[in-house]
Amino acid sequence: MAKQRKLKLGVNISGVGNSMSVWRHPDVSTDASVSLDYYRQQALKAESGKFDLVFIADGLYINEKSNPHFLNRFEPLTILSALAAVTSQIGLVATLSTSYSEPFTVARQFSSLDHISGGRAGWNVVTSPLEGSAKNFGKGEHPAHELRYRIAEEYVQVVKGLWDSWEDDAFVRDKESGVFFDPGKLHTLNHKGEFFSVQGPLNIGRSRQGHPVVFQAGASESGRDLAARTAEAIYTGHELIEEAKLFYQDIKQRAAAYGRNPEEVLIFPGINPIIGRTQEEAELKYQEVANLVTIQSALDYLGRYFEHHDFSQYPLDEPFPDLGDFGANSFRGTTDRIKREAKELNLTLRQAAIRAATPRGNFIGTPEAVADLVEQWFKEEAADGFVIRTTVPRALDDFVDLVVPILQERGIYRTEYEADTLRGNLGIPIPANRYTKVTIAN
Amino acid sequence: MAKQRKLKLGVNISGVGNSMSVWRHPDVSTDASVSLDYYRQQALKAESGKFDLVFIADGLYINEKSNPHFLNRFEPLTILSALAAVTSQIGLVATLSTSYSEPFTVARQFSSLDHISGGRAGWNVVTSPLEGSAKNFGKGEHPAHELRYRIAEEYVQVVKGLWDSWEDDAFVRDKESGVFFDPGKLHTLNHKGEFFSVQGPLNIGRSRQGHPVVFQAGASESGRDLAARTAEAIYTGHELIEEAKLFYQDIKQRAAAYGRNPEEVLIFPGINPIIGRTQEEAELKYQEVANLVTIQSALDYLGRYFEHHDFSQYPLDEPFPDLGDFGANSFRGTTDRIKREAKELNLTLRQAAIRAATPRGNFIGTPEAVADLVEQWFKEEAADGFVIRTTVPRALDDFVDLVVPILQERGIYRTEYEADTLRGNLGIPIPANRYTKVTIAN
Repeated sequence: MAKQRKLKLGVNISGVGNSMSVWRHPDVSTDASVSLDYYRQQALKAESGKFDLVFIADGLYINEKSNPHFLNRFEPLTILSALAAVTSQIGLVATLSTSYSEPFTVARQFSSLDHISGGRAGWNVVTSPLEGSAKNFGKGEHPAHELRYRIAEEYVQVVKGLWDSWEDDAFVRDKESGVFFDPGKLHTLNHKGEFFSVQGPLNIGRSRQGHPVVFQAGASESGRDLAARTAEAIYTGHELIEEAKLFYQDIKQRAAAYGRNPEEVLIFPGINPIIGRTQEEAELKYQEVANLVTIQSALDYLGRYFEHHDFSQYPLDEPFPDLGDFGANSFRGTTDRIKREAKELNLTLRQAAIRAATPRGNFIGTPEAVADLVEQWFKEEAADGFVIRTTVPRALDDFVDLVVPILQERGIYRTEYEADTLRGNLGIPIPANRYTKVTIAN
Repeated sequence: MAKQRKLKLGVNISGVGNSMSVWRHPDVSTDASVSLDYYRQQALKAESGKFDLVFIADGLYINEKSNPHFLNRFEPLTILSALAAVTSQIGLVATLSTSYSEPFTVARQFSSLDHISGGRAGWNVVTSPLEGSAKNFGKGEHPAHELRYRIAEEYVQVVKGLWDSWEDDAFVRDKESGVFFDPGKLHTLNHKGEFFSVQGPLNIGRSRQGHPVVFQAGASESGRDLAARTAEAIYTGHELIEEAKLFYQDIKQRAAAYGRNPEEVLIFPGINPIIGRTQEEAELKYQEVANLVTIQSALDYLGRYFEHHDFSQYPLDEPFPDLGDFGANSFRGTTDRIKREAKELNLTLRQAAIRAATPRGNFIGTPEAVADLVEQWFKEEAADGFVIRTTVPRALDDFVDLVVPILQERGIYRTEYEADTLRGNLGIPIPANRYTKVTIAN
């Protein structure tokens, strides 16, 4: 508690953009989602702004109505491995689902990324909200929400166990005696659980961070619980400070209740900053992008969050339809927000769809105004940091060039990296290897 | 047939080495298997020698008897993605097993690597020879040899199908009209087979090579058949020219019988070149490494190829035990060779184990002598190219610095890359998308 909290920052690099329409903007390169040059340039820009991390989101199912970026984008682990070779200090966090993958492979790939990057890897644990994913993985049915989280919990335990296969000093590598490793420091997990049976050991040693940093992104009850028990950082979607504070308190309390240090579970709301020299200029930038959305693509976008619901069946210019509990599972945080805003702001379906398809949020204005919001959220404990999403072109560049210097001047954000690992910069300790005996000096 | 055949070259980068003992050599860095610097330096060296490709082998099971390199090494797709960002022309080929992975994920990761590298990815299809692999993937039993190859065949078809999800010109990206893609050029695979059910489409477009180049490495009957039907390059283990020629002929004939152009299935024996200023110096280099093997580690190494057989039960200095058909499945090429050499050369168990643990081969001698062998194998159609494996330190450096210039001078090897894709350099055409209608001009 004695050490001063410092703001953390990340950027969600998302090619042609998170919104449906931003790819149509004259300043956007339309192949950005599969351009190494674009990802490299964004990562280096974020690194020049001393950002903690680059974040790559993911999904396992598309159809013809999906967001353009989702149709044709890099797979997260491969692009982050490429970025590891051309950056030196920024963290590299990839989304990977526990519902359609093998813990042995995932443990290996993240550990390998951690070795490649010298200790900068992070894993954002998700459970695949999209129903259709099952069809790409030969599974009869997509597991229901609660079940997915039970699977995820066991999965994360298996992965962490595999990461401890080798103690930190297991590799002796003594050329003289010919001893490459100490067999007493090699551990076989022998996990046999409800969903997984994984023997181990992992065929890669403990990486510099011990374990890659574990992120989580679920806002539902079981998502929060998983996060409070197992995650070290949480990527959330709140855009109202009151809501974000409640979430922040809730997670920190849950973590404490599980016997964890709440300072070691960091909360990162995703925000969509739009910066202008004046408030009007910023609002204009937003409108420019929002005006590019077609109503059909906006309805498609909305539908994806509601289990591929067909919104074209409702009248466009009447109040947003009452969907009851529908959509309460998969993208819980997002669907709750859409419903609540539609109600509070009396939005028609058309307005709600356009708003959803072009995320707006509240971080719009002059550099000072945005820095004020960032500082307020941080100081009032609505956030430990933020993940920047790019609703408009050059959003990251503007944030780094114009907002970061203000935050540095105010003393709430670093001017130099504290460390060259992601854990070091986030201030999250290296987890002890479960097998390592602690010797107390007498 | 008119165009002149040109020799192809690759290097299998393998950290602390393929042999049990080379890590003990004073010139070997003992953390090479998890050192980005080492992999980068080797890849750049190979690229300076105009090599077609870097090859990363893999395995999914270790125990305390495994080769040091296998215990603690990079996962292939992550390290190749990192190398993609720091090289510009050399191909990047990763081994990945069809027995313990999901075709949707594997199709995505290789396509992503192909996009990241601008068309330099290759996939070496293996079926996981090691019995123990099943235990790391929650499978009750490791599928038997024939079954693994049937699974692999369907798996490769699914992956190729997913790679065709989008036609080459599917992404219109017309900002004016707001059309991002042409729905008529998006194809859903809807595969329902004996082992896999995968709907698609893949969430990444066709990459520059159309499909990453497909390698295969099985020497058994079903391995050869799979290769002849589906592979574009084959990584083999033959070290005697007569044997290699028979294999070469066999594969080319099988490919022709399946209606394929035999020139589009390239054969790459793996060789362990050891170069000295004199024949004696080269032999000394070999002995230096062979002398570092302990007999226990040599027996362990041998055991791994024979389904983890315990060779310490046999007397060391009596003839190599008669194992009958044992070991005929998993590492067929290697176990056949070990048995045959033991018989032909009257080796004791000790001699055979040391020989196996420190691969020797025949490519040992002066640069001219090794170049002569390379030229002979190439001209007599025992090989279309070679994958260099490193039995002694600096083996790649010596090959590039001393042998490559001779091969170039003799006109059988390139002095400049012909292309900047792996297919382009190998001379293997881009596969047509199965859905693209060919229009014949009238």
